[in-house]
Amino acid sequence: MSRESAFIDRLRSFASDPAARGLIDDCAVLPFGSRDIVLTHDMLVEGVHYLADDPPEDVAWKLAAVNLSDLAAKGARPIGVLLGYPLGESDWDQRFADGLQKVLAAFDVALLGGDTVSGAGPRQIGLTAIGEVESGAAPSRAGAQAGDLLCVTGAIGAAGLGLRAALRGDEASGFIAAYRRPHPRLIEGRILAPHAHAMADISDGLLIDAARIAAASGVAVRVELESIPLPPGTAQDSEARTTAATAGDDYELIFAWPADLTLPQLETTKIAIVGAFHEGKGLRLFDGGKIVPLPRKLGYEHGAS
Amino acid sequence: MSRESAFIDRLRSFASDPAARGLIDDCAVLPFGSRDIVLTHDMLVEGVHYLADDPPEDVAWKLAAVNLSDLAAKGARPIGVLLGYPLGESDWDQRFADGLQKVLAAFDVALLGGDTVSGAGPRQIGLTAIGEVESGAAPSRAGAQAGDLLCVTGAIGAAGLGLRAALRGDEASGFIAAYRRPHPRLIEGRILAPHAHAMADISDGLLIDAARIAAASGVAVRVELESIPLPPGTAQDSEARTTAATAGDDYELIFAWPADLTLPQLETTKIAIVGAFHEGKGLRLFDGGKIVPLPRKLGYEHGAS
Repeated sequence: MSRESAFIDRLRSFASDPAARGLIDDCAVLPFGSRDIVLTHDMLVEGVHYLADDPPEDVAWKLAAVNLSDLAAKGARPIGVLLGYPLGESDWDQRFADGLQKVLAAFDVALLGGDTVSGAGPRQIGLTAIGEVESGAAPSRAGAQAGDLLCVTGAIGAAGLGLRAALRGDEASGFIAAYRRPHPRLIEGRILAPHAHAMADISDGLLIDAARIAAASGVAVRVELESIPLPPGTAQDSEARTTAATAGDDYELIFAWPADLTLPQLETTKIAIVGAFHEGKGLRLFDGGKIVPLPRKLGYEHGAS
Repeated sequence: MSRESAFIDRLRSFASDPAARGLIDDCAVLPFGSRDIVLTHDMLVEGVHYLADDPPEDVAWKLAAVNLSDLAAKGARPIGVLLGYPLGESDWDQRFADGLQKVLAAFDVALLGGDTVSGAGPRQIGLTAIGEVESGAAPSRAGAQAGDLLCVTGAIGAAGLGLRAALRGDEASGFIAAYRRPHPRLIEGRILAPHAHAMADISDGLLIDAARIAAASGVAVRVELESIPLPPGTAQDSEARTTAATAGDDYELIFAWPADLTLPQLETTKIAIVGAFHEGKGLRLFDGGKIVPLPRKLGYEHGAS
């Protein structure tokens, strides 16, 4: 067991409030009067979740976007955020604040408070986001049923291509924005949440996030590699699809949809059926109808609870 | 202007939601149905807010306590917390988790979620706490009025004595616990909040926290040095009182009380009247009826918003 799994297991042993959802979800969902409060806290660490020379405005964007994406996966309307910020070089800090203002305005979210401290070592920036959802409407990660379709919004793999472009210094790449300024699927999440049996965002990779939904739900999942929608204008072969399905950072939604229900037409993007849940356990990958070996890594394993 | 003030001013320029309270409060207070949600996020940084060789169980206790203390100052009932945790040495991490379980159980607060990341450099641990309060019942820092009494709960200065004992390695000191395991005044806060015109917790020092209430409220405050209640069994002179009033970390409540209202009798601790608010601006210190110079430092200036 990894150090991180051991720590999270220890926390799980006393996170017994139903709102904590056993720490298997990316959000807490807390009944509060006639609605539910949705809460999430995600951190970005320099050199782990972003590159040290990424523009500070984009780091702020990404920090807000990854948290709002967790709210999107619960179908929640975001209300506000609290920032936990280590002060560093003052030009960087000011540009970070510029970016934060921009991203919060873009998604109509209030800065509510937080804390600033003296920083040292690699930057580690935390954000808590709070949102609200109709009582009982937030899908969990654990609700997928045998027979459900496995679906995703949008295209998969653009952020991974963007990361590789950034690493080789190709600032002109059209994919850089997908890596640095992901768009949380807030509108789509609110449409899908009331009907999806389970939903999450693709932060760590389609395959690993699909496997986590299956494991949390006590069912098996199969993924059809050839159904994974790739960004237009890129290679459309099995290798590209495998890379995309394990790259993460796309912040598209991945969800279990009841097979007897019509998928909604979204105005903003397409929905693709990329697999199905069935009795059993584990993840199997198919390509052209044939089972194929799983890639060595299914996605990122840096932890969230 | 300090780097930190500049950064917070920049954040303040767009933190325009009323729930943010202009970032002058330690908490956001968010109307939500028939009650208000109270949210706070505070971090502890190794070497800044705690000593590197403090026991990890106590660091967890303090992290929870400082956040719950912010809720106490709003008269809020705590509901739960989210943890932002950088993994380090695994024995330390496990002991931290033990301490977190203990402090959350002591105050009946749920662990709701959070994030763990790979840590490097000095530890920087964040916690978000959420609580609830009757609609409109949470006092702000900015409501003190001329004529109000300045009051504090408990005794002042025990944590400062504990810090000095810890620094000289005197683990037998009876004050160590006050520094490492402060008790948030949750019960007292709920009794005082509906009537106090303004309230905060003493995190950075009685003098600086009094001055901040006065500044936020647009009034002046005078503090009577000889009225500051010191822990029993310690020196009871002006020097000790000045040290206590600037030491911080006590997490007692400091509040503006309407002069025409009887102070409640608390079962758990005493309330002391240590000064008064009046027209004007600034802080003045009196000792034996005579004005005395302010100490060079009024308290800690590490920032919170």
